[in-house]
Amino acid sequence: MNAEIVVVGTELLLGQTLDTNSQWLGRRLADLGINVYFRTTVGDNERRIAEVLRAALSRADLVLVCGGLGPTVDDVTRQGCAAATGRTLVLHDDLLAKIRDRFEKRGMRMTDNNALQAMVPQGGTPIPNAHGTAPGLWMDLGAKVLCAMPGVPREMTEMFDGWVVPALRERGAVTATTRSRVLHVVGMPESHLDTKIEDLFRSSENPTIGVLAHAGQVDVRLTARAANAEAADALIAPLERALLDRLADSVFGFDADTLEDTIGKNLMARGHRLAVAESLTGGQVCDRLTNVPGSSDWFERGVVAYSNASKTALLDVPEELFRDHGAVSEACARAMAEGVRTRSHSAWGLSLTGIAGPAGATPEKPVGLVFVALAGPRGTAAHRHLFPGDRAAVKRWASQAALTFLWRTLTQGA
Amino acid sequence: MNAEIVVVGTELLLGQTLDTNSQWLGRRLADLGINVYFRTTVGDNERRIAEVLRAALSRADLVLVCGGLGPTVDDVTRQGCAAATGRTLVLHDDLLAKIRDRFEKRGMRMTDNNALQAMVPQGGTPIPNAHGTAPGLWMDLGAKVLCAMPGVPREMTEMFDGWVVPALRERGAVTATTRSRVLHVVGMPESHLDTKIEDLFRSSENPTIGVLAHAGQVDVRLTARAANAEAADALIAPLERALLDRLADSVFGFDADTLEDTIGKNLMARGHRLAVAESLTGGQVCDRLTNVPGSSDWFERGVVAYSNASKTALLDVPEELFRDHGAVSEACARAMAEGVRTRSHSAWGLSLTGIAGPAGATPEKPVGLVFVALAGPRGTAAHRHLFPGDRAAVKRWASQAALTFLWRTLTQGA
Repeated sequence: MNAEIVVVGTELLLGQTLDTNSQWLGRRLADLGINVYFRTTVGDNERRIAEVLRAALSRADLVLVCGGLGPTVDDVTRQGCAAATGRTLVLHDDLLAKIRDRFEKRGMRMTDNNALQAMVPQGGTPIPNAHGTAPGLWMDLGAKVLCAMPGVPREMTEMFDGWVVPALRERGAVTATTRSRVLHVVGMPESHLDTKIEDLFRSSENPTIGVLAHAGQVDVRLTARAANAEAADALIAPLERALLDRLADSVFGFDADTLEDTIGKNLMARGHRLAVAESLTGGQVCDRLTNVPGSSDWFERGVVAYSNASKTALLDVPEELFRDHGAVSEACARAMAEGVRTRSHSAWGLSLTGIAGPAGATPEKPVGLVFVALAGPRGTAAHRHLFPGDRAAVKRWASQAALTFLWRTLTQGA
Repeated sequence: MNAEIVVVGTELLLGQTLDTNSQWLGRRLADLGINVYFRTTVGDNERRIAEVLRAALSRADLVLVCGGLGPTVDDVTRQGCAAATGRTLVLHDDLLAKIRDRFEKRGMRMTDNNALQAMVPQGGTPIPNAHGTAPGLWMDLGAKVLCAMPGVPREMTEMFDGWVVPALRERGAVTATTRSRVLHVVGMPESHLDTKIEDLFRSSENPTIGVLAHAGQVDVRLTARAANAEAADALIAPLERALLDRLADSVFGFDADTLEDTIGKNLMARGHRLAVAESLTGGQVCDRLTNVPGSSDWFERGVVAYSNASKTALLDVPEELFRDHGAVSEACARAMAEGVRTRSHSAWGLSLTGIAGPAGATPEKPVGLVFVALAGPRGTAAHRHLFPGDRAAVKRWASQAALTFLWRTLTQGA
């Protein structure tokens, strides 16, 4: 099966928005064993959209469209699909009721322009959108399929995986299966990891190994392609074991696992609670931890102690400590971790203090200097870091380092 | 002048590489007053490249190609350009000598495949490449131009700015300058905004109006094209005034402004400090505020009071309030805002409490229910919201609503 991708949006042609949907779709289609030979981006213009769709339908079995299904006047993908296939648009009462309902549930009145989203080219099937008002569109044209999805990445990806792929499988259009396994590595720079696994990297063709580095985390992705999921998994298993042999104590999890999740599960299993005292990260560590559903079971509190006064008032950091060591010091990090632990009656107190920049640095204390401390049942430990980059990067590196420190202590006691 | 962009590379179709060249080129062409109606991505296949180029040359005055000019066997853009224009490839001795020279200077022997880079379609002009071996290609086809550049971003951008733009100016093809102005709107859903400005949206062709919605924020972009920057700005000014007349009290800023920045500047100007007490957002409001450089001048502290015990201990929320109203209530939000304000001796205390989900909901208190309160010099006010989406979306909508509430109060006293 050959597919073609059509992306709709003047903002993409003007370069105002970066198209990441195409990359995502390209990857998914490759995984499904579906070839893509052309991808076209076109502006919000009904005539040109129809022109592109006609050309795509003349070449491909499956035409996937992204974008232009929203409620504004420049959303004309629906009309373009109708024009390209010579169908008229008809109003779906069900769809209209659903859209109205969605608005009413949020205590808002549906405006007229939203009704356009209930129009479907004759013979077309609307695709439910779990995360927005704009439904997708599936048109079975006999030998060919025209399928339109919203341009909002999250709406598109869930619609594709949740509805379009099953529909393609039903048509027998999906022949190969690709399976991936991702190992999440922390506390090891990409270049070290690279050296450790270079030989495996070079010798393995199926599965392939891909490495993606973020601030303080490296994801190693194994991707195998086979006739079915079991065969693909069987190709992955031995390589995964080989990688774990070399990286084990730096791998916190797999696939959709996050460092925050993993920490939460560990704390839950112990029946322990955690409290956090942040300075330079300004709430980011707490924000990440509370992204975990159910975190209220183990996350007791957080304190963003930005001013020295708040460090003293909320964490009992002695005032003379600022004079003797400064707020950016190991002593202050230790006092913050112990203070938040004691005050909250939690098993664990995690703290960070540092200089995110651009201001606040001195020759002895440069931008990126960060102290992380952890107070726990066996006492308090601290680490010193020097992170690269601007304010946002330093905050991100620091929050990752703090969570890594906590994870390592919880799982390896060190 | 109309241009069309053709991007060559199988790795792009497979989603292995994200195409950032197109965005860069799209932006540059828009700024130069050159329209782009189509962008096509095609794999490393000579026949398909030629097919795409023929279609593009039939529609556009200028066809810009990126990628496929390198020395490997799958680099066939040169051959595709020759096929699409019916020219034969001829060897440029000068070019060959230069490429050989480049290799020798680096102490390497030129391999045969590199000689292909010295081939140019008859009548074409090679474009020097300051950063790599692959020269670009300029073909003057009379009324039209076909121009191919390497896919390596740095080589492409320097070649475009340094050689292609001057060549286009020489042809009189660059006539315009484009200027943009972005208005940032909060506290108004996209569909309402649309209704308010629909007539302007429909009637305005230059500037154009583009609308981009995030969680709790809509960006309205005015883009005008004129002979020079002053003329373009003069076109934008009256439309900007018309939009501000209708949206004024919802526009917090322009262009690179963020809501957090704008709040920070206002607090700085007043000499006021802010303290924040978060529950469901778990630190995200503090994280966003402390992303602003220099926020330590006006951000006093934050408290992530997740447990009821921490709300009482850190914010003086009376224990009986949980029994009478529950932690997710207007009364609790008010007590949190007043507690953090009083304890921190700050002018402003901002608070949030709510249900991020997926757990914790009751029939009366569904997922997405959020109370935001602000305690200030003139007393305390609170709002109730019901936000859509999953845990991450609710957190994002809630943090945006809290910052919007604060901004509105600071700027409009309401």
